[in-house]
Amino acid sequence: MTHPPILGTLESALYVPDLAAAEAFYGDLIGLPVVTRAEGRHVFFRVGEGVLLVFNPAETEVPGGNPDLPVPPHGMRGQGHYCFAVPPEALDLWRQRMEAGGVEIEADFHWPNGARSVYVRDPGGNSIEFADPSIWA
Amino acid sequence: MTHPPILGTLESALYVPDLAAAEAFYGDLIGLPVVTRAEGRHVFFRVGEGVLLVFNPAETEVPGGNPDLPVPPHGMRGQGHYCFAVPPEALDLWRQRMEAGGVEIEADFHWPNGARSVYVRDPGGNSIEFADPSIWA
Repeated sequence: MTHPPILGTLESALYVPDLAAAEAFYGDLIGLPVVTRAEGRHVFFRVGEGVLLVFNPAETEVPGGNPDLPVPPHGMRGQGHYCFAVPPEALDLWRQRMEAGGVEIEADFHWPNGARSVYVRDPGGNSIEFADPSIWA
Repeated sequence: MTHPPILGTLESALYVPDLAAAEAFYGDLIGLPVVTRAEGRHVFFRVGEGVLLVFNPAETEVPGGNPDLPVPPHGMRGQGHYCFAVPPEALDLWRQRMEAGGVEIEADFHWPNGARSVYVRDPGGNSIEFADPSIWA
């Protein structure tokens, strides 16, 4: 059976209870443009052709209550994962920028195919990776 | 300060303890190509230029133990969120395909700008959306 088309990933989600800290990290330090925010509930960022959604799970676990926009509830606890595709020649610059912002480099290594990944933690403890996209080539 | 470049989202992550059910849903029903799998730990799928990572959190919460590939541990519990960008004219086809596969449509509505989203649940209870990318235009 033929599958209907998919264009790509539109939204990826992370959960960070402290949204101000999330905006300082993703907006100020990483430099992602803010698409929209709802005080205490979420802040969304543009990443390439998609959007990175950062939610406060305490707010998204309960139904929204707007019958015209019945967005299903969701919410996770723990440490999630997300990876930015960056040009390999920019990985050292990202390392430097994270360290200049007081963010520790948790790991920095090359995969068996030679491509490199750099890992940090966001303010919610999520494992955030900057990687040469050829890790999946 | 100028920020180093970001090309886009490379990896989005979801957590589904039953990986066989995840592969039936994302691989067979949605039709995503499997990039790689590690029995009991994860199964990864190609989506456009990125990769959707589906993990069993019980396995990823503990360090991997390979000093050459020190992938930081992560893992979440609850119901996450992920959204596929699909052509708006394909949304009815996705609805039909989900229902033919026994997957209930949890929500189907238009945002204030007119773009439409359709929501289902994956086998881990994650809220999975198919959306016209113009919701963020």
